[in-house]
Amino acid sequence: MKYSKLFTKTLKEAPADELSKNAQLLIRAGFIYKEMAGAYVILPLGLRVLNKISDIVREEMGAIGGEELQSTALQRKEVWEKTDRWSDEVVDNWFKTGLKNGSELGLGFTHEEPMTDMMRSFIHSYKDLPAYPYDIRTVFRNEARAKSGLMRGREFFWKAMYSFSKDEAEHQEFYEKAKTAYKNVFDRVGLGDKTYLAFASGGTFSKYSHEFQTLCEAGEDTIYLSKENGIAVNKEVYNDDVLDDLKLEKSELVEEKAVEVGNIFSLGTKFSGSLGLTYNDEHGLDKEVVMGSYGIGISRLLGVIVEVHSDMRGLVWPESVAPFKYHLVTIAQSEDDESYKKSEELYNKLIERGEEVLWDDRMDVRPGEKFADADLIGCSIRIVVSPKTLGEDSVEVKLRSEEESKLVKFEEV
Amino acid sequence: MKYSKLFTKTLKEAPADELSKNAQLLIRAGFIYKEMAGAYVILPLGLRVLNKISDIVREEMGAIGGEELQSTALQRKEVWEKTDRWSDEVVDNWFKTGLKNGSELGLGFTHEEPMTDMMRSFIHSYKDLPAYPYDIRTVFRNEARAKSGLMRGREFFWKAMYSFSKDEAEHQEFYEKAKTAYKNVFDRVGLGDKTYLAFASGGTFSKYSHEFQTLCEAGEDTIYLSKENGIAVNKEVYNDDVLDDLKLEKSELVEEKAVEVGNIFSLGTKFSGSLGLTYNDEHGLDKEVVMGSYGIGISRLLGVIVEVHSDMRGLVWPESVAPFKYHLVTIAQSEDDESYKKSEELYNKLIERGEEVLWDDRMDVRPGEKFADADLIGCSIRIVVSPKTLGEDSVEVKLRSEEESKLVKFEEV
Repeated sequence: MKYSKLFTKTLKEAPADELSKNAQLLIRAGFIYKEMAGAYVILPLGLRVLNKISDIVREEMGAIGGEELQSTALQRKEVWEKTDRWSDEVVDNWFKTGLKNGSELGLGFTHEEPMTDMMRSFIHSYKDLPAYPYDIRTVFRNEARAKSGLMRGREFFWKAMYSFSKDEAEHQEFYEKAKTAYKNVFDRVGLGDKTYLAFASGGTFSKYSHEFQTLCEAGEDTIYLSKENGIAVNKEVYNDDVLDDLKLEKSELVEEKAVEVGNIFSLGTKFSGSLGLTYNDEHGLDKEVVMGSYGIGISRLLGVIVEVHSDMRGLVWPESVAPFKYHLVTIAQSEDDESYKKSEELYNKLIERGEEVLWDDRMDVRPGEKFADADLIGCSIRIVVSPKTLGEDSVEVKLRSEEESKLVKFEEV
Repeated sequence: MKYSKLFTKTLKEAPADELSKNAQLLIRAGFIYKEMAGAYVILPLGLRVLNKISDIVREEMGAIGGEELQSTALQRKEVWEKTDRWSDEVVDNWFKTGLKNGSELGLGFTHEEPMTDMMRSFIHSYKDLPAYPYDIRTVFRNEARAKSGLMRGREFFWKAMYSFSKDEAEHQEFYEKAKTAYKNVFDRVGLGDKTYLAFASGGTFSKYSHEFQTLCEAGEDTIYLSKENGIAVNKEVYNDDVLDDLKLEKSELVEEKAVEVGNIFSLGTKFSGSLGLTYNDEHGLDKEVVMGSYGIGISRLLGVIVEVHSDMRGLVWPESVAPFKYHLVTIAQSEDDESYKKSEELYNKLIERGEEVLWDDRMDVRPGEKFADADLIGCSIRIVVSPKTLGEDSVEVKLRSEEESKLVKFEEV
C-alpha cells in the first residue's frame, strides 16, 4: 500500500484525556480513533492487525473443532431471565435498549444464554454431541470507568467459544485441548513469554476457572506467579486453602501486575439446566448437556501487544501481526529520481512475491519525519532507498526491533 | 468440511411465525437461526456465504480506492444533534441506550455523522483529499415491523462507504466510479440480470439519489422500469416533472416489485457544513468538503440472492457465493465400503487442489434424505459416489441448477 493513499495521519500528540499507553501510541500512529471512552474506531492500519489476530484465533479454534458463526448483539430478556442474569443488580454492566412496542432488549456482553437456547434446535441425541460453535464479534459492556484504552472497552471485539459435551469426561478432554489452543494463540501473537495460566474464581459454575494472564505494568489484575511451575493464582482466590489445594508455597510466588487476555470456564449444567438443553443418551435417557465457555478479547490483545511490544519511538509489532512486514522508505525529490524509480521497482517485486509492503512514497516530507513515522508505525523491517544507498547499489535494511542497520545489495533483497 | 462435523441440521419446517421465503429456506437449510424478528444468528454455512459476499464488496471498494475500517456501534448524542438527526421525531428507527453516568447513546443505523466528525482529524489540506473510508459492520434499525427475513433487519450487516472530495467535479467523478463498482458487485453475486439503477429521492441533500433495485416479488418497493434504457424510477418520485426531467415516457415504463440492494447519495456539504469539516485549498482558502455516501446491505443481499435463486427443493447458489462449490454425497453402510474409501480419496484430492467441498459422510441417513439435503443446501455441483456409480468406475455429477446428471469416470474428476 502506498502511504500517500492512506487517509490516516500520524499525530505528534495523543488526545489529552487519553491516559493509557496502548491507546496513546495507537492513536498517534493512526491505528485507532477515539470515538468515546471505551469505544474506538479501528482505522485501516489497526484493522490489518486486528484481522491478523482474529485469523490466528480462527486457525487455532478451527484446529480443535470450532465452527464459526455470528451471533446477534440484540438480546431477548426472557432468555436471560431464565438464568437470572437479566437484572442490572445481578449483572452490572448491561447496555439495555428496547423495541418500539416497549419490549426491553439487551446488548450482548457474552452469549452463554442465547447460544444454549439456540442449541436446543440442533442437539437432540448423543449423536449430535460434542459441538463447538464460536463467534468473533463486538460485545458491549457498560463499564463505569474505561481508562485502559483497548484493554477495557465498552464496545470491543472478542472471540467466544462454547462447548457442548455429553459428560464431564468429554468436557474435560476438550477443556485441555482449549488450554493448548489458547497457549498457541498467545505464542503466535508474540505474548507467549509473558503469559501464564492463572487459577481464578469459577463463579457459581465450578471450583476454578482458568485465566491467561499477561505480565504488564498497566494490567488491572494482580496475580501471584510461580515462574518455576509456570502457573499463577489470581488475587481474588489467593488464600491458604487455594494454595494448599494447588500445592503451591507462598514463598515461591511473586506478586505481579497482569492483564487477563483469555479465560476458560467449566460451566457444568448450569446453563443447560436453566434453559432446558438436554439430549437422549445411548440408553434413551434424557441428560443435561455439559458446557464450557472460552473467551479471548481480540481488541484487548491488540492493546496488550502494544503495552508489551513498544519503545520510546513507537510500536514494535511481532511479525505475525504487523500491519505490513516491510516499510519501504524512499528519499526522493520527484518521481524522476533514480531512488523513486528503484523503490517502485522494488515495491512491485515485493508485491508480486506476495509480500505486504507499506511504501512511504511521499515527496513533501523530510527524511527525518519519514523515519520517525516508520518507527512509530512499527512494521517489522524498514527498507530505505536513497541516493546514498543507491551510490552503493544497495538499500538500507533495519529490523524495527534492533538498532543496527545494514546495506544490502539491491539485487539481493 | 465433513457434514458429520457440522453442528447445524436441516429442518423439515421453518418456524411458524417466519413468513418470508428467504428466511424460511435459510432456516430450514441451516444457514441462519432466528433470534427474534429482524435479528438472525448467521450459522457456519450462512457465514461462508456472507463472507464471500463481503469479500466481493471489499474487492470492488478497494478497486476504486476504498480503505476499510471498523467504526463503532455506540454513538454520541452531541455529534448527531449537530445535524438534527438525534431526535426520535426526525429519525424514527433509533435504538437508544445509555452510560452509567446517565449520558444517552445511540446505536449506529448509519455513520455519516461520526465519520465526518472523525475526518476532521485527518483532513486539513487539499493534499489530504480525496478519501474513501468504508466499513462492513452490523448496524441497528428499530423497525416497527420486520417480516421480510434478511431483507429488512433490526440488526444487520452492511457496507457503508463515505467519499470526501475537494469539489463537486471530483465528487461526481468518484460517484460514477462507485456506480460501476456497484454494478460489478451485483453482477458478481449473481443478481446482475435483475438489478437496475433507479432514481429515488435525494432527501434534503440533492435532487436525486440512486438506488440499485433488484426485481423480486417479495420486494417492499415499487419501481417503474424502462427495460430499454436499463433505468427505473422509484414510486416515491414517480411524477410528471421527474419523468420530464429524466426524458422518460410513461408508456415505456412497467410497474414492478423490487428490493433496494444498494443506494448512493450525493451529500454535498450538508454534513461537512454542520460538523465543520473544512480544508485549506490551493490558495489558502477554507472550503467545506463535498461528500457522498454509498450503502450495500450485505445480509440483505444474502436474502435477495435466496429470493431470486431458489426453487421448490431449496437454495440454488450462484457459484461465486455458494458455501461450497462441491457437495459430495457418499452412499455407504460403513467406512469399510469401497464407496466410502473412494469418496475419502476424492475428498482429499479436491481439498488438496484448494477446492471447497462439503462431504456428506453420514452413515445413518438414507440416500433420499441426503439428496434432499444437498438440494436444500444448494451447493453448485453435486457429486455422488455409490456402489452403483463405482460399478461403472464413475461418479455421478449434477449441477444444482440443472435437472440432468451424468456419469464421469473417477479419474477424470
